[in-house]
Amino acid sequence: MTSPSIPDALRQALQQQFQHRFSQGDSTRQQHGRDESVHDPMLPGGVVFAENVEEIRLTVAMCAEHGVPVIPYGVGSSVEGHVLAPGGGISLDLSGMNQIIVIHAEDGDATVQAGVTRKQLNDALKGTGLFFPIDPGADATLGGMAATRASGTNAVRYGTMRDNVMATTTVLADGRIMKTGGRARKSSAGYDLTRLLVGSEGTLGIMAELTVKLYPIPEAISAAVCSFPDVDSAVQTVIQTIQLGVPVARIELLDALSLKAINLFSKTTLAEAPTLFFEFHGSPASVEEQAQTVQGIADDLGGTHFEWAARPEDRSRLWQARHDAYFACLQLKPGCRCFPTDVCVPISRLAECIAATNEDIAQVSIPIALFGHVGDGNFHLVVLVDTGNEQDMAEAAWISQRVVERAIAMEGTCTGEHGIGLGKRKYLCLEHGEIAVEVMRSIKQALDPHNILNPGKVLPPAR
Amino acid sequence: MTSPSIPDALRQALQQQFQHRFSQGDSTRQQHGRDESVHDPMLPGGVVFAENVEEIRLTVAMCAEHGVPVIPYGVGSSVEGHVLAPGGGISLDLSGMNQIIVIHAEDGDATVQAGVTRKQLNDALKGTGLFFPIDPGADATLGGMAATRASGTNAVRYGTMRDNVMATTTVLADGRIMKTGGRARKSSAGYDLTRLLVGSEGTLGIMAELTVKLYPIPEAISAAVCSFPDVDSAVQTVIQTIQLGVPVARIELLDALSLKAINLFSKTTLAEAPTLFFEFHGSPASVEEQAQTVQGIADDLGGTHFEWAARPEDRSRLWQARHDAYFACLQLKPGCRCFPTDVCVPISRLAECIAATNEDIAQVSIPIALFGHVGDGNFHLVVLVDTGNEQDMAEAAWISQRVVERAIAMEGTCTGEHGIGLGKRKYLCLEHGEIAVEVMRSIKQALDPHNILNPGKVLPPAR
Repeated sequence: MTSPSIPDALRQALQQQFQHRFSQGDSTRQQHGRDESVHDPMLPGGVVFAENVEEIRLTVAMCAEHGVPVIPYGVGSSVEGHVLAPGGGISLDLSGMNQIIVIHAEDGDATVQAGVTRKQLNDALKGTGLFFPIDPGADATLGGMAATRASGTNAVRYGTMRDNVMATTTVLADGRIMKTGGRARKSSAGYDLTRLLVGSEGTLGIMAELTVKLYPIPEAISAAVCSFPDVDSAVQTVIQTIQLGVPVARIELLDALSLKAINLFSKTTLAEAPTLFFEFHGSPASVEEQAQTVQGIADDLGGTHFEWAARPEDRSRLWQARHDAYFACLQLKPGCRCFPTDVCVPISRLAECIAATNEDIAQVSIPIALFGHVGDGNFHLVVLVDTGNEQDMAEAAWISQRVVERAIAMEGTCTGEHGIGLGKRKYLCLEHGEIAVEVMRSIKQALDPHNILNPGKVLPPAR
Repeated sequence: MTSPSIPDALRQALQQQFQHRFSQGDSTRQQHGRDESVHDPMLPGGVVFAENVEEIRLTVAMCAEHGVPVIPYGVGSSVEGHVLAPGGGISLDLSGMNQIIVIHAEDGDATVQAGVTRKQLNDALKGTGLFFPIDPGADATLGGMAATRASGTNAVRYGTMRDNVMATTTVLADGRIMKTGGRARKSSAGYDLTRLLVGSEGTLGIMAELTVKLYPIPEAISAAVCSFPDVDSAVQTVIQTIQLGVPVARIELLDALSLKAINLFSKTTLAEAPTLFFEFHGSPASVEEQAQTVQGIADDLGGTHFEWAARPEDRSRLWQARHDAYFACLQLKPGCRCFPTDVCVPISRLAECIAATNEDIAQVSIPIALFGHVGDGNFHLVVLVDTGNEQDMAEAAWISQRVVERAIAMEGTCTGEHGIGLGKRKYLCLEHGEIAVEVMRSIKQALDPHNILNPGKVLPPAR
């Protein structure tokens, strides 16, 4: 796709300011014009590699002067087209903003630049007795995770980025630098701008620095795998566990196809059946109690092969396999891409939602793996397509629309953790209603009147 | 105070629509023109008693047509002047909106009208095995609690209204009815309008219905009281408990004066010394483990009289005494009123913040009790004043300003849970900076361009 060119004056100004950290090279633009989704690439006119808040401010101010879009970019692991440049403009790569500014171990918080990744933060926390729990599949940047309101396997216990971003330093559309939130654990002081930015996908401001919550590493951790005769038994186990209030840290469902993919990819020998992965955090006694309760529920529902991974290295192998599920599934159909979908429903509707989705899956020819963070009512479809094959794409679109509409009909959401990006704009009004979307538009208009911050994302085109 | 009168056409329209549920009587207006604070009453021109969303919509639309302010009113338990009518207008009393619309026990959520109080909701939950944990001192309405981002004694474990409002039905300034959020436990679908409304104090929209999270009643609950030789030992006990990650449900500090007031008011015989109230939730084994850990910390720091309240009736008596602390303190100085202040700081600064505050308290002549939700770093001053006494008022203003400025200097907040209202507008820029406050103003302008929703609250006057 050809993108609108960058005005000469802006190009010159960016070159002068950023030297080799401004690039218009084809490969750099191609790398920044796509993400993990099936969306056709849409290339930016150039890429700026920023290293601090002031450089973000300068880039935004220069682009604003010329009415040129700015698209923040972390590591490109988004899956709904968030980093694509449908109107060209400048991709603002924040991966060089990888400084951990301060760790307040005594308060359980850390302030980092937006390009720090979740694994980098956890590495830096070694020796503090603390960890940062939010873990989307990829080793995403914290800025990107905040922008998409990401979560992952630990959310059922530790919440999502919504709950764990305490404060931000954000560059506004006109180049002003705004501080939001603070380090107090709670506050009633004014509008919650931090929560407004989290999940706004770079359309209201560019988060340059973040303060996030940290948690004590539990005294005891125990993980387990259990397979089930069918998906419904596994889901019923989840529902009963959550309804009983067991403070489980992770409870993940993977279907038989996911397990097959994992075994192939990770050289594991797990039963290729619907499976739950569990993890329990707490004191030794409380972990044992939680585990017994959940094992009892699973036993009653026909769970078998309840295998414990108490040693850290076994746990790591287990969760690495879980985190690799997405990439493992991609290997099931060589050369394919993934048409991803994630939805989230109230837990009481989860079994029904997954059962109906599996009926849909049975009707199409493309491979579709189902797994997810079912403790929250959240699951993903990894829909494998040859993007050049019209039938593949039509089937994928049909499945995606079916599962989204079903989730919304069940008072759920069209995306539990991936975000709207380009791919799910068409469902925003269905989920929230026209009035809420009009209000979102009026907020966008108030904060970015010239529509230069990641234009075309989140909000569907006005009618 | 004389308030601007209501235009005749509006008065007639309201009378015709609401009959006896529209009042311009003096006593009704007086009741709706004051709250629990020391602010001089500011009366509305009239009061509408709404019973459903449509009546809120009608009232707002009628008032919008005439450019007349609308001030939402719950039970008037706010403490920063939130419900006062500085520009006259219509007080919209939502206490008649007391229907519990639906309880989804299986999903742990309930949808209620905004006038339902926290005790009413918990009464309705009897038999479900669930409870709603947020408990400000008063039996406030859930609408009011959401509007001020309230919390209370359970917030250290269960979060605040920020974390526990899932969805709203909100009437906008032009009378449109908006739905926000949903019943999924998480979502990445668009801007977080629910969180924007929570804490906006009725200035961006009027929340008419709310969906809130519920929690399983813990299998075991245990409460305890422990007194300390000085405030610092008590605070150090709190800090160590939180830093160890003990999942304590409640941990409350009360100073010696608060204990004296409680003993007088509640006929208790607690030691009149700095005291911590604890509560532990979980399985029997986990509760015992938590209690042992905390008792060990307290013992090391000189805690004495560690008294357990295991029976439900003893626990209720204990927490009723804690909840009555505010009213108990008011009795210390007959005829006085309270000049309330609440601040919140990062836990590592709590001891220092309280110690410096106690040095200030020693310098004034008025009685000041200190207590609060110290597990979050949040504490209150109950500053007792004769509002007619200039020295009292000057001392109260000095103390309040000192503690707020100190909290902000420690990266804390000028209000942990009371809100901004009229009383703390002057600190909003100090805490958040001019740019964030400008952005808040631009959001207010976008959502309420004619400034009819609770005007004069939250945002300081523009320079």
